[in-house]
Amino acid sequence: MTAEIITIGDEILIGQTIDTNSAYMAKALNLIGVSISRITSISDTKEEIIRAIQEAQSRTNLVIATGGLGPTRDDITKLTLTEYFNTELITYPEIRATIQEIFERRNLPILEVNLMQANLPKDCFIIPNKIGTASGMWFERNGKVVISMPGVPYEMEYLMQNGVLDKIKATFKTPSIIHKTVMTSGAGESFLADRIKDWENTLDQEDIHIAYLPSSGVVKIRLSIVSEDRENAQERIDRKVMELLQIIPEFVYGYDDEPLEKAIGNLLLSAGVTVGTAESCTGGYLAHLITSIPGSSSYYQGSVISYSNEVKINELGVKSIDLLKYGAVSQQTVEQMAKGVKKKLKVDYALSTSGVAGPDGGTDEKPVGTVWIALATPDGRVISKKLQLEKNRGRNIQRSAIAALNLLRLELTRNY
Amino acid sequence: MTAEIITIGDEILIGQTIDTNSAYMAKALNLIGVSISRITSISDTKEEIIRAIQEAQSRTNLVIATGGLGPTRDDITKLTLTEYFNTELITYPEIRATIQEIFERRNLPILEVNLMQANLPKDCFIIPNKIGTASGMWFERNGKVVISMPGVPYEMEYLMQNGVLDKIKATFKTPSIIHKTVMTSGAGESFLADRIKDWENTLDQEDIHIAYLPSSGVVKIRLSIVSEDRENAQERIDRKVMELLQIIPEFVYGYDDEPLEKAIGNLLLSAGVTVGTAESCTGGYLAHLITSIPGSSSYYQGSVISYSNEVKINELGVKSIDLLKYGAVSQQTVEQMAKGVKKKLKVDYALSTSGVAGPDGGTDEKPVGTVWIALATPDGRVISKKLQLEKNRGRNIQRSAIAALNLLRLELTRNY
Repeated sequence: MTAEIITIGDEILIGQTIDTNSAYMAKALNLIGVSISRITSISDTKEEIIRAIQEAQSRTNLVIATGGLGPTRDDITKLTLTEYFNTELITYPEIRATIQEIFERRNLPILEVNLMQANLPKDCFIIPNKIGTASGMWFERNGKVVISMPGVPYEMEYLMQNGVLDKIKATFKTPSIIHKTVMTSGAGESFLADRIKDWENTLDQEDIHIAYLPSSGVVKIRLSIVSEDRENAQERIDRKVMELLQIIPEFVYGYDDEPLEKAIGNLLLSAGVTVGTAESCTGGYLAHLITSIPGSSSYYQGSVISYSNEVKINELGVKSIDLLKYGAVSQQTVEQMAKGVKKKLKVDYALSTSGVAGPDGGTDEKPVGTVWIALATPDGRVISKKLQLEKNRGRNIQRSAIAALNLLRLELTRNY
Repeated sequence: MTAEIITIGDEILIGQTIDTNSAYMAKALNLIGVSISRITSISDTKEEIIRAIQEAQSRTNLVIATGGLGPTRDDITKLTLTEYFNTELITYPEIRATIQEIFERRNLPILEVNLMQANLPKDCFIIPNKIGTASGMWFERNGKVVISMPGVPYEMEYLMQNGVLDKIKATFKTPSIIHKTVMTSGAGESFLADRIKDWENTLDQEDIHIAYLPSSGVVKIRLSIVSEDRENAQERIDRKVMELLQIIPEFVYGYDDEPLEKAIGNLLLSAGVTVGTAESCTGGYLAHLITSIPGSSSYYQGSVISYSNEVKINELGVKSIDLLKYGAVSQQTVEQMAKGVKKKLKVDYALSTSGVAGPDGGTDEKPVGTVWIALATPDGRVISKKLQLEKNRGRNIQRSAIAALNLLRLELTRNY
């Protein structure tokens, strides 16, 4: 079964906003067996909205629109759909109450325009939004469905996960698609593909489709089967995953979109050990990844972000003579940072990073993208590693943090 | 004048690739007075490509397509366009020579499929690609133009800047579009809209279009004019922006997509002062925002991330009796954290955060989303603020960090 996505908003058409919503929705819909046949981005005008919906409905039974549901005058999607579906706005008291709660919780004054967000079309199934004022709307006429959601990414994601996907599954007969995603870190896509090519060649005869999905420092290997026999399909996939695990055990850290920082959190929790960090080039991003996991306060003590050399010397005990001799981006410095923060925060494991994130600051000897990472362990060892990354500051920060986490993962899986 | 963009490729429709090309093209085209009226993403099939081009040509005279020009079998854009425009492939010797040069330069063996990239449509203007094997193609029939470029972002960008934009300017009479985006922080979209509604009502008579673009803690207000008279339009927008500045001076921090952390970096640089941070609930994200700006090492010294109470006491000098009495999430604690890190890192300004990020850990008195932020200033004052956010951990971390940055911004703009 297919669907079309329509994103509404001038900000995409003038290039100010990159449309990340469509990729999120496409991925989530693919998982429930709905493939996207077209994505259309249009401006915030009544004529464009109506034209795009009419066209999409002529091709498919499911149209999913985002954007144009804010409280301000430039947002006209709700009024346009109300007119298009020949209905009228009525007040939904329970939605009004939710909106009031949101403002009370945040201790913000509520305005008339906010309350007007509870005026929604009659003859329309409302999908409540508990984290914003724009509700999701589900219009159904003669077996054809149009869904409208806000364009704010986290609100759209909330509605997808809390109503939209379930209602699509219940309304349309979607084929069963079984997916299993194997999460890997520590090797690039082409390296992995080469290592597992013989195994990959056996997937065809099982009707298993494979996809490599790389992102900073992590490569996901996704296996999928389209089948009505869920149980059998699940068994076939599980068997192949077991085989894969035997070929690349050192790279696999988890399954089904588990972030590396979550897998490490679980390893630390079950081993009953703590970790701290000392960051230079990653500037807090490593700590941010670790603390993005709920409950991380059980194993994460804290960090010293030593952006300046003074902080490296005074707070982490890096020897000033070594900073002079080897520089801040060196094996000597990064190892002393790890040891220093381990002692200071009294943790079992300590990670550190120091590098030239860029875009400037490189030298012939240490070009932009030169990064050292280190791990201090409970038995007094320090493991360090040099990375040679690229010119992009943001990506260098991300990849350094992931590489540091992977160093810790390898050590934890070896020990526990 | 308007144009439409068509992106061709299954990777976008399955959500594997986020379409960043469209935003790049839209921005570049806007600057030469071409506004994008629609962006359509379709799959790599002949029927879809032809249908999308026909539809787009029925609405506009300029269609710009990317994708599907690679050497592999699944890339069929070139063959499809050759058929659609009723022409044939011929070998372009100079393009063949360029492709050979590229492979020689990279020291790679050249394959037959690579050389076939020099077979291009007759009756078509070729835009040479010096950094890849897929040429740009410009088809022109009865005043209507279809441009085809590769989907690899840096190759598309190369072709836009080396041929496409100039040829569009030379071929079409393009009006000017002037945009100005005002960046605000510290107030929500509806609060701002209410504060500036009288001013907003005056925009119509100037033919100025307004859009509100909210994201975590920041609301962008974008003004646009379509006009032949660039200078006059710029003046009209500038005048309205000046008026706006007088209505909401405390919320405006910059223009044209400048991130808040960049604006603050500039304020710190020009004042010649330094900043440090002490983070609990934001767990490194505040430091990450600050250090995501190149050159931040000139004003950012570092951070103590005190995720545990021990670190708050030992490293930041928070009194254990206050931690017991008021808790970690309290005005007392967050103020002591700011003072402690200011002294420790010897910085002029220090920011601190402490809160219940969630999703668990809330109490009746301090529900999830309760966050305290504080700022210690050079003259010994400490300013603190309580936020009441929501249930989402990731969003609470983001919004707390932005609110802390905004506290610093308000203080810096007051002082310098």
